[in-house]
Amino acid sequence: MTVPGAPETGYWYGGDYNPEQWPEEVRREDMALMRRAGVTLATVGVFSWSLLEPEEGRYDFGWLDRVLDDLHANGVRAALATPTASPPPWFGPAYPDALPVTADGVRLTHGSRDTYCVCAPAYAVASRRIARALAARYGRHPALALWHVHNEYGTWCHCDHVARAFRTWLRDRYGALAALNEAWTTAFWSQRYADWDQIQPPRATQYLPNPAHRLDFRRFLSDAMLGHYRAQRDVLRAAAPGVPVTTNFAYGGWVPVDPWTWAEHLDLVAVDHYPDETGLAAAEQTAFAADLARSWAGRRPWLLMEQAAGVTYTAGGRTRPKAAGELTRHSLAHLARGSRGAMFFQWRASRGGAEQWHAGMVPHAGPDSRVFREVCALGGLLPRLAAARDADVATGAAVLWDPECWWALDAPSLPSSGIDYLAAVRQAHRVLWRAGCTVDFAAPVREEGRPLGVSAPLLVVPALYLASDATARALTEYVAAGGTLVAGYLSGVADTFGRVRTGGYPGALRDLLGVRVEEFHPLGPEESVPLAVDAGRPELGAGSDWSERVHLAGAEAVAGYAAGPLAGLPAVTRHRHGAGTAWYVSTRLSDDAFGRLLGLAAPHVAGAPGAGAVPAGVEVVRRHRDGTAWVFVLNHTEAAHRLDVEGLGLRRGARDLVSGAPAEGLRLAAGGVAVLEGRPLA
Amino acid sequence: MTVPGAPETGYWYGGDYNPEQWPEEVRREDMALMRRAGVTLATVGVFSWSLLEPEEGRYDFGWLDRVLDDLHANGVRAALATPTASPPPWFGPAYPDALPVTADGVRLTHGSRDTYCVCAPAYAVASRRIARALAARYGRHPALALWHVHNEYGTWCHCDHVARAFRTWLRDRYGALAALNEAWTTAFWSQRYADWDQIQPPRATQYLPNPAHRLDFRRFLSDAMLGHYRAQRDVLRAAAPGVPVTTNFAYGGWVPVDPWTWAEHLDLVAVDHYPDETGLAAAEQTAFAADLARSWAGRRPWLLMEQAAGVTYTAGGRTRPKAAGELTRHSLAHLARGSRGAMFFQWRASRGGAEQWHAGMVPHAGPDSRVFREVCALGGLLPRLAAARDADVATGAAVLWDPECWWALDAPSLPSSGIDYLAAVRQAHRVLWRAGCTVDFAAPVREEGRPLGVSAPLLVVPALYLASDATARALTEYVAAGGTLVAGYLSGVADTFGRVRTGGYPGALRDLLGVRVEEFHPLGPEESVPLAVDAGRPELGAGSDWSERVHLAGAEAVAGYAAGPLAGLPAVTRHRHGAGTAWYVSTRLSDDAFGRLLGLAAPHVAGAPGAGAVPAGVEVVRRHRDGTAWVFVLNHTEAAHRLDVEGLGLRRGARDLVSGAPAEGLRLAAGGVAVLEGRPLA
Amino acid sequence: MTVPGAPETGYWYGGDYNPEQWPEEVRREDMALMRRAGVTLATVGVFSWSLLEPEEGRYDFGWLDRVLDDLHANGVRAALATPTASPPPWFGPAYPDALPVTADGVRLTHGSRDTYCVCAPAYAVASRRIARALAARYGRHPALALWHVHNEYGTWCHCDHVARAFRTWLRDRYGALAALNEAWTTAFWSQRYADWDQIQPPRATQYLPNPAHRLDFRRFLSDAMLGHYRAQRDVLRAAAPGVPVTTNFAYGGWVPVDPWTWAEHLDLVAVDHYPDETGLAAAEQTAFAADLARSWAGRRPWLLMEQAAGVTYTAGGRTRPKAAGELTRHSLAHLARGSRGAMFFQWRASRGGAEQWHAGMVPHAGPDSRVFREVCALGGLLPRLAAARDADVATGAAVLWDPECWWALDAPSLPSSGIDYLAAVRQAHRVLWRAGCTVDFAAPVREEGRPLGVSAPLLVVPALYLASDATARALTEYVAAGGTLVAGYLSGVADTFGRVRTGGYPGALRDLLGVRVEEFHPLGPEESVPLAVDAGRPELGAGSDWSERVHLAGAEAVAGYAAGPLAGLPAVTRHRHGAGTAWYVSTRLSDDAFGRLLGLAAPHVAGAPGAGAVPAGVEVVRRHRDGTAWVFVLNHTEAAHRLDVEGLGLRRGARDLVSGAPAEGLRLAAGGVAVLEGRPLA
Repeated sequence: MTVPGAPETGYWYGGDYNPEQWPEEVRREDMALMRRAGVTLATVGVFSWSLLEPEEGRYDFGWLDRVLDDLHANGVRAALATPTASPPPWFGPAYPDALPVTADGVRLTHGSRDTYCVCAPAYAVASRRIARALAARYGRHPALALWHVHNEYGTWCHCDHVARAFRTWLRDRYGALAALNEAWTTAFWSQRYADWDQIQPPRATQYLPNPAHRLDFRRFLSDAMLGHYRAQRDVLRAAAPGVPVTTNFAYGGWVPVDPWTWAEHLDLVAVDHYPDETGLAAAEQTAFAADLARSWAGRRPWLLMEQAAGVTYTAGGRTRPKAAGELTRHSLAHLARGSRGAMFFQWRASRGGAEQWHAGMVPHAGPDSRVFREVCALGGLLPRLAAARDADVATGAAVLWDPECWWALDAPSLPSSGIDYLAAVRQAHRVLWRAGCTVDFAAPVREEGRPLGVSAPLLVVPALYLASDATARALTEYVAAGGTLVAGYLSGVADTFGRVRTGGYPGALRDLLGVRVEEFHPLGPEESVPLAVDAGRPELGAGSDWSERVHLAGAEAVAGYAAGPLAGLPAVTRHRHGAGTAWYVSTRLSDDAFGRLLGLAAPHVAGAPGAGAVPAGVEVVRRHRDGTAWVFVLNHTEAAHRLDVEGLGLRRGARDLVSGAPAEGLRLAAGGVAVLEGRPLA
Repeated sequence: MTVPGAPETGYWYGGDYNPEQWPEEVRREDMALMRRAGVTLATVGVFSWSLLEPEEGRYDFGWLDRVLDDLHANGVRAALATPTASPPPWFGPAYPDALPVTADGVRLTHGSRDTYCVCAPAYAVASRRIARALAARYGRHPALALWHVHNEYGTWCHCDHVARAFRTWLRDRYGALAALNEAWTTAFWSQRYADWDQIQPPRATQYLPNPAHRLDFRRFLSDAMLGHYRAQRDVLRAAAPGVPVTTNFAYGGWVPVDPWTWAEHLDLVAVDHYPDETGLAAAEQTAFAADLARSWAGRRPWLLMEQAAGVTYTAGGRTRPKAAGELTRHSLAHLARGSRGAMFFQWRASRGGAEQWHAGMVPHAGPDSRVFREVCALGGLLPRLAAARDADVATGAAVLWDPECWWALDAPSLPSSGIDYLAAVRQAHRVLWRAGCTVDFAAPVREEGRPLGVSAPLLVVPALYLASDATARALTEYVAAGGTLVAGYLSGVADTFGRVRTGGYPGALRDLLGVRVEEFHPLGPEESVPLAVDAGRPELGAGSDWSERVHLAGAEAVAGYAAGPLAGLPAVTRHRHGAGTAWYVSTRLSDDAFGRLLGLAAPHVAGAPGAGAVPAGVEVVRRHRDGTAWVFVLNHTEAAHRLDVEGLGLRRGARDLVSGAPAEGLRLAAGGVAVLEGRPLA
Repeated sequence: MTVPGAPETGYWYGGDYNPEQWPEEVRREDMALMRRAGVTLATVGVFSWSLLEPEEGRYDFGWLDRVLDDLHANGVRAALATPTASPPPWFGPAYPDALPVTADGVRLTHGSRDTYCVCAPAYAVASRRIARALAARYGRHPALALWHVHNEYGTWCHCDHVARAFRTWLRDRYGALAALNEAWTTAFWSQRYADWDQIQPPRATQYLPNPAHRLDFRRFLSDAMLGHYRAQRDVLRAAAPGVPVTTNFAYGGWVPVDPWTWAEHLDLVAVDHYPDETGLAAAEQTAFAADLARSWAGRRPWLLMEQAAGVTYTAGGRTRPKAAGELTRHSLAHLARGSRGAMFFQWRASRGGAEQWHAGMVPHAGPDSRVFREVCALGGLLPRLAAARDADVATGAAVLWDPECWWALDAPSLPSSGIDYLAAVRQAHRVLWRAGCTVDFAAPVREEGRPLGVSAPLLVVPALYLASDATARALTEYVAAGGTLVAGYLSGVADTFGRVRTGGYPGALRDLLGVRVEEFHPLGPEESVPLAVDAGRPELGAGSDWSERVHLAGAEAVAGYAAGPLAGLPAVTRHRHGAGTAWYVSTRLSDDAFGRLLGLAAPHVAGAPGAGAVPAGVEVVRRHRDGTAWVFVLNHTEAAHRLDVEGLGLRRGARDLVSGAPAEGLRLAAGGVAVLEGRPLA
């Protein structure tokens, strides 16, 4: 399988390489260390605009020539970046109108990175110019493996350039102003527009904003950034045909662009991932991100473009060194899920600058460090795993993930300030991960008639707040054909413009779920409500955060509220539809209870090969190709475990590619990894 | 009694009606549902400027003609709003100088509501023009019952228009610049003004602001908004003589304008009220707001213009459905206190827009809902209560409420960050409410020689930080004439310019209270100090938040500090003056202790008819007229209670207007209401 | 010893005197009260610019003439201020470009104090002009004792004037742009400057700022403010030769200027100090501030220019009256440490203005108050302590204090959000203070070859993040010569540009400390790690906030991590070097454990005269001169204590200057003070 941007054999391994920060002798040492570490790819030039074009239109490529030549001489390929994520200091003074403006009207100043307006003409011109210059000079350089456009798109702006571009985008979307007025419910609060030019970006205003206005602005920003990407991609393709082009998605506590839309414009989907928790939670976050990336890529290969070598940045602002083996396990969790490599930001930790405390493959302490030793060990391991590279990832369930719902639920005037889309989706994924189930993410259906594309027998749909008719229809078809759907509260509520579907929640999904919700009853931050189930069914504990006044309209109750104003009313329901079943969960369950509910709804998930065969905290990912199976086993626990090869779905005779030993009787060390290769049982 | 703006018979019942948000068929359904619900008044056009005047000077009244005609045809009257609270999208681009500017200098943009500068000439012109157009077209429409000017005045601005208007206001207030310099203590920090033009609004500055500057700016803003109101009122009166004019006060966690000043310019005082707590606390907040509104109206009738039909918006941003019967109890709590109606925002919950999650009389779920059923039941009940409408409300105590003290105590450099004027006033009201005592609020005396106007035997004065000589004199006269005054700490401290009265706190009230306070001892957030009382007196527990070094100067100690640096000094005192007594409370008591103290100070309050006759959580309001008494009984508890008619001050033979049954032996259901009509005992 | 700015005999005693806020009769009373209180110095004119120059260029000195004449007539000297900390209202409208601009671009407005840009030419002109006018008029006034330039320098600005001045400062510092690019690591994030004019102040930018950019801006601001001070000083010196010049440092939770640099430009170092805690913590803060001030002054005399008479402003925004005797103890704690006086802000508490709740020597309650009585008692006591005035302060240890490290560690992207430079330095001082040890602070070495200047046998170095080669060398020499050095984590890490010294932490101190730290392991806010020590050594409890992967490289382990990922590795080490020892503490110890560790490292500290002779909470400061010793004893506890004169290092026959009684057998009342005069034991 030839994949644009993927290595011909084995995996990409390396990181962002910024030798311009260091004296000559360090750069010489780098080459030796890269060879020692088994580096195969270096990302170059991401933040080098001010060196490459020290004044407008004057280029200095000498140093980069030497870097690329050195890499080539040492057998390392280059992901060559266009440096447009960080305009140089001369840019702002020359084009002050191209600096970004906050919602409050503050025009930002050079002093960090990412300081530009993606809609400013001067920025577009300067971006294409530097991309063209790079393509002209390096398009045929033997080290060049991949164009890396920009970096982590995500800068917002509210300036007049943006206002104009936003209006153009809205005209394209709505055609007539009347349609926009209708979609945005501008009859409320005297907001009916009589002219396109009256529409502004959602700048600081007196009181609550219009949620439809904000939602469309988020959509527009994603598309505006995509436009900037495509302009560069086209320049690069024209000047250097055949070199694949990518950009790296930032992902974590926010999602600045819609990867479902972007993915088709990338030759290779690439993601950056930095868990902000430690231990098992970090492993779960890693699996979540990797499953997302694979799904965005449409099951094509993809690439983990950045991770941190030695350090986790926790949400509270305190760093934490990764435990021994953690770097390896996180890398293998990505590779197991289809990444064509394991890349890091960055090769060598910086001495100065804003990210001087960001981890490096070579830390401040230098190569005599446990981090660099683990980097070398991992670099040595990867070639032994090459056979698994092109195999299919086996998945057992799907979760619907929609960035537009996330954007819509990030609004200031919802029924509860406790709504958290990311938490809902992460819970669904986490519960399945703990059940040993590898998950595909599914996209909402944006065009009537397009299929949902979910083949897994279980589909979890958390907080699908914006539900198009097309998505509702596709979900109905999925169930009719035998699928098991588990929908969470806040699903189906609104149309894609954020307008509530009246007559009772969950709006678009009312018929499919067989329920009608009369009212939301959000719970307080410390509040919970006990749930009652029939004898013999698994206990579901108590609901938290949210509850609802649910009326059955075809469905049957699986669990009910056992106290409070909703006592006696249904809390969890199920509804047979065609060959399948649609479940509705009107409150937030604990992870354990949600796991038991999924086990009830889809016993096959719990019965998948390997489920039960490994202890909690041991992650298993299966891949298959041409009659061979590879089972990645990652021990996130602090105890050693003996592997049950049959339990992992392999016939006798399998071997571990990591240790080279037979899989039979293999003992997985605390924190250790194995990749078993063998023939599948069934 | 003919009251401008009040219905000729019965009560106003209905809500904001915004049919322009909905398709034609919904509007047809609305008429049928309004009839079913017994609606008598609809507030129309509040947010319709962009529809009525889609471009400057061009009007489109067709849709509003149809709405008013439909209402008329269905027996519903209209409170027709001038839409000036929400200028349309064309307004800002045409008059950018009329958009409001924050203290930080950010000029806000269209995108919400309320985005205007009340001092901008262009806004004044546009406001009068649309008011004139509405008056010309609808001044004689048979549906028209009331002009509803603007909506919830409260937008602040710091622009140059405001600066000019502020200076004019200050010239009017002070005459000479020297007087202002003296009042503001500008000798401090080199702020002495040499020219009126040097005075700015309190914009962002380097460090602490001048508190007198801020206080006068708040007063000015209230007057500036009043000027805008009066300009429209005059236009409406001139064009449509005889139609009463009102506006609706926003009230809750802030008070943007001074209702004591405004009330005389309204034909009918109208308030919006949204409790932000649930259960009993919501009932207390409702009584507090209704007592305030009645007091602002000077015991004239008034109108609850907005409440939420089905949902409470709690302070933490989580909505909460109102419990069964709560909507009815809150409405009756307002009616019992003199409201001429019970109105809601809004008739039908919006599908989209910033307030799509705000409640409606017709919720998203539609008429098949418990909320709409309760709306209909309440609509059916109101006509049965018509006889009570014009009766006097019987009150037993008064609380002094001064928005200027609130403004002054909302400052960044007070002796304690824990000072909370609203909490102090609410506590006084709550404790009396729990004692079964309906409360009047009293205004401070703003002009020397005007009376206080309190006839109740008990007057509670919490945190009267700004005390004019006139108010101090009026309070002294009140006590001399036999009244019982209970003053709380932070009273009397400053003059009306916020200048501390030296020589010892509580400044202006020192002689009346017979104490001299040498120092404030604010307590920490978690701190308390035990209080000692003589044997036989009610325990007062511990003080919190605040304490003081009190010296007796004529008063006697009722309770003392029992520990800490103030041990042995007085904490609560009383001072005979003339025929009455003045009490001073130098620390914050618990609700229960404060209740016991009031019982000690004014035993008649605890001995009022009905006190003790109803269980805690059952609210009783009495009204009298021409020898008949009406007793509103609202059961906020979750238990049923049997009513003791004599205990409620009625002779045998009374009947319940709600159930139609004899009052004798009546059982009030959990959450239920009764309105007893009969002859008073005494 | 003649000291510029210090009184010829005795101590300065008094406060800021702002009679312009009061009517004539109050000013007359002031003179009588000042005499009663023993006031010797009044600070005049700090905030009087708008009175002195009511319009630009027109002066009104009449009132100030009278004030100075009155003071002189009553035997009170004047610290006459230039009023430039508060430009008058006419200044901003006349020179809008001279108002300060925030990082967000908000230009601030008059309305508080301190609203100016220190780099604006118009402000410089106006500042010199008013200084010149004051000097001309009052330079020979007999009351004049001291010029008090400005007040608490510390206003920041980000305007274009500042940008220009910043660039000039950078040119002076770096010479070539290439040197700046190297120092700031501008190769990272495309920040390489091609022209000086591209450099901006650190205004609002898109993401993380460059830490070197921010650090140099802080240095520049300190120097820019120093330039403003020096310009005035030169004007005053030229016009009134011989009158000493000072300014008062603001100090507490921030340090806006670098006092090490400023001190040499002041004739008398002056500080303002407001503890924000109460009780013992306030005493500790006071000792900390006074030790700093004495150290800044290079052991020359200095002056406590401001403290609060009766009230502590706690960090939570709640004031707290000082306990009886506390005002006296705090004043004596300063005097004991070399202050030539005890001054207050302000003489009389203001009625109005932003600081109307700030304490006064004459409080709102007036002279009939415990505060004023204590003020009078202290005023009466001071002359009796005159003999101790010029004695040397005996110190036992030193702590390195570097404002630049504080600035560098106040950055948004460090390894932990829990880093707190002030807390680290305060802990070192507090632990020594509790051990009865008076502390000198030492400055880092800014120029190669200059000595450290520490003669004490123990030097504690907390969080010396920025360590120059010169400082590292000086510390090494200190140890080689026999000193005991105790360095805390985050020391030696970076060079003075904030660039990490690679190869292992603690960078510059690696050789001296004999350790190599591979990684930082910051701990969570609630986390701790137990520490193991060899039997017989003092227990060190658990580390918190921070830990590190320490490798021995010559040092020996004194304590080790006993759990967690670092279990078994060293936590505290010591390294013999030359005649001394260098200790390293890689985690945060509790106060008690840190005290035990210092006792182990430097037993002489615990064995100093008096250590152990006084109970906890009794502060002892010793001074010596010409064979006489004075021992200040401040009882911060609520119990009385009998003094052990020998334990305090005095021979029999000493007497207490406070009570006049023999020291032998003296009983120190709860909260009381004694100043023993006698002959030292050794």
